[in-house]
Amino acid sequence: MKNALEINGERLWDTLMVSGQISPGKSTGLDRLALTDGDRAMRDVFVGWCKDAGCTITIDPFGNIFARRAGRDPQAKPVVIGSHLDTQIAGGKFDGVLGVLSGLELIRTLNDLGIETKRPIEVVSWTNEEGVRFQPPMLGAGAFAGIHEAAWVLGQTDPDGIRFGAELERIGYAGSERRDSADIDAYFELHIEQGPVLEEEGLHVGIVTGGFTSLGAEVEFRGENAHAGPTLMRDRKDALVGAAVLIAKVNEIGWEFAPKGRATCARLEISPNRYGIIADRTVVTVDVRHPEASETEQMYRRAMDVLPIIAKQANVEATVKKEWRFGGLTFDAELVNLVRTVAAEMNVPHRHLLSAAGHDAYHVATVAPTVMIFTPCRGGVTHNESEHIELHYTVPGVNVLLNAVVRRANA
Amino acid sequence: MKNALEINGERLWDTLMVSGQISPGKSTGLDRLALTDGDRAMRDVFVGWCKDAGCTITIDPFGNIFARRAGRDPQAKPVVIGSHLDTQIAGGKFDGVLGVLSGLELIRTLNDLGIETKRPIEVVSWTNEEGVRFQPPMLGAGAFAGIHEAAWVLGQTDPDGIRFGAELERIGYAGSERRDSADIDAYFELHIEQGPVLEEEGLHVGIVTGGFTSLGAEVEFRGENAHAGPTLMRDRKDALVGAAVLIAKVNEIGWEFAPKGRATCARLEISPNRYGIIADRTVVTVDVRHPEASETEQMYRRAMDVLPIIAKQANVEATVKKEWRFGGLTFDAELVNLVRTVAAEMNVPHRHLLSAAGHDAYHVATVAPTVMIFTPCRGGVTHNESEHIELHYTVPGVNVLLNAVVRRANA
Repeated sequence: MKNALEINGERLWDTLMVSGQISPGKSTGLDRLALTDGDRAMRDVFVGWCKDAGCTITIDPFGNIFARRAGRDPQAKPVVIGSHLDTQIAGGKFDGVLGVLSGLELIRTLNDLGIETKRPIEVVSWTNEEGVRFQPPMLGAGAFAGIHEAAWVLGQTDPDGIRFGAELERIGYAGSERRDSADIDAYFELHIEQGPVLEEEGLHVGIVTGGFTSLGAEVEFRGENAHAGPTLMRDRKDALVGAAVLIAKVNEIGWEFAPKGRATCARLEISPNRYGIIADRTVVTVDVRHPEASETEQMYRRAMDVLPIIAKQANVEATVKKEWRFGGLTFDAELVNLVRTVAAEMNVPHRHLLSAAGHDAYHVATVAPTVMIFTPCRGGVTHNESEHIELHYTVPGVNVLLNAVVRRANA
Repeated sequence: MKNALEINGERLWDTLMVSGQISPGKSTGLDRLALTDGDRAMRDVFVGWCKDAGCTITIDPFGNIFARRAGRDPQAKPVVIGSHLDTQIAGGKFDGVLGVLSGLELIRTLNDLGIETKRPIEVVSWTNEEGVRFQPPMLGAGAFAGIHEAAWVLGQTDPDGIRFGAELERIGYAGSERRDSADIDAYFELHIEQGPVLEEEGLHVGIVTGGFTSLGAEVEFRGENAHAGPTLMRDRKDALVGAAVLIAKVNEIGWEFAPKGRATCARLEISPNRYGIIADRTVVTVDVRHPEASETEQMYRRAMDVLPIIAKQANVEATVKKEWRFGGLTFDAELVNLVRTVAAEMNVPHRHLLSAAGHDAYHVATVAPTVMIFTPCRGGVTHNESEHIELHYTVPGVNVLLNAVVRRANA
């Protein structure tokens, strides 16, 4: 590709390292949960950078931050680049953050080069993508896209019972400018792969054509409290035994459908969870994912079919309290094609991929043409403080983003 | 038995029902954890009753309360009756409480009848038997018997990090009179059976000849945080899978050794225990019990032997962090004989039993001749708010206690 635009990788890295010191975790990562003081500090820094880059800032009622670089045609819908600045409870420095700051770097590069685009370009940071503090994940993007009712979103509470809306007010990011979700020309999200494929295959860019189908459930087991000593095995109704057998079974299902399928129980509530007293209640979160919707459904059915058997064995009651489904979508063919063309022209080694994780882009894809670009991360490790990327493996993907966005913004 | 003494069952019941309103649980039981305001309120009521019955009160540095009824011979060592007034977090009204208040009723009965004994009689309420708030269980009795170092006991902390010693001071039960554990002639503890045997066999008294051997361990699994979506099954180090397989296995071991054996995991710590993030650390509490020490040891070995296999399967590390052993003791033959003789003379249907639960009596037995008397509880249900006893099934056991204690106190 002649005259391909190039970002300033060192400058991008500097912004990542500033972010990497806001709400440090226990070792090398971050612990920057949504709407905490750390989240506010990061938002303030990001808004400052965007203003310095000449952007106009708007904040919507869900705390989503939009930074707009004007285009030649003020009536044209913007090309939007986004991701999230919140992290997992023991997360890395790059998950989400890289996508937002790549958008900023892209705008800085256009400023440096004095390049004007026909369409405006916006960078957005979505609120509460991780879903650690407030459930569900991708809450800000879901609210923007109209997936969730506004009042319901603001009423979600964290484990201490604090309302999402109250925390938005407290940190000063309860904006008043509700954005029209139809007002987007195209949405690009760059994100670390969170898997090992690009690294193992020596590639720099994954063009994400869509998402795994994910099915999930909260399964409750109800038994009875009893003393762990005198209570005969035959008299027990042990809710933790029910949960344990299910967790082991879900793991087996993951292996049966490997390597494409994966099945996880990451969360388990136990009551009363005290020495010497048999548990009367447990809640297990079941999560199965596969690139093929029909296979995901089969994995899920396998897990659900075993519930009555487990319940009988453990002499407890099993109930499905919540069920959810996400992913299973296909990104915009035109944008996928655009990114592939740009990557090929730039000689950036690339491949198509499906995303196994949820992303803000899933929700945005319901209202606008959307595509994602993955860049490598070491060992595929993520949601872990040791998450790591190398600048020279990352810059090619950001350059592909830059050139694809500019081409779209001038189309 | 001619002229067998008899307690006032209604009066005993009245005291149980007063206790049954101090720190009520969610339904019909109690939630009176050690050294809480509720525990203080119960202690205050109990001390008042004992003073009204003419007893002299002493409080030791561990908050154990001793109420002494003088005997004819002031030099003679006392006959002691005891149990505990703290309850489980969702416990019943009778576990422990019945034993302490039976001791009080016994003293009231002797007062009513104007009976003097040669030896003094003492009723003791031991601190923190349940071990819910402070670990380990039977902490007050263990401190009294010199099983634990005094400073270590006072330094134990609850889940909020509050010190045992500080809470004793706060509720006004940090006494100064350290008792000599050699200064006991005999120790009797009456307790609900916490098992179904007496009810099923239509008996009123279980003469406890000793305790099950109990072995326990805290097993830690260490894996690695990772994202539940993109992380391939082969790349996972899921500490919750390790824990789940162990919990299921321990339950199986319980069934293999049933009906005498029982095996339980009641407590499980999980980190970070959040949706979407594979657990990097879990801690499972393993608890196996059997009347025969050699069988308990076999159960325990079976659980420990499987650890390397589980660790390999789940791709995690398994480490035994703590191990403990209790029970496996035999109560004093002379006292067992005394209780059996009295029960037979009174025509109270009885049998020998082993205790599967831990009791304060286990610690006291290391310093004084000790025996326990079990009375029936409905369905064997305990450590549950629906724990229930009937007065007419209970009074015979308390009368056996009364007559056995008086005989011993006059010997």
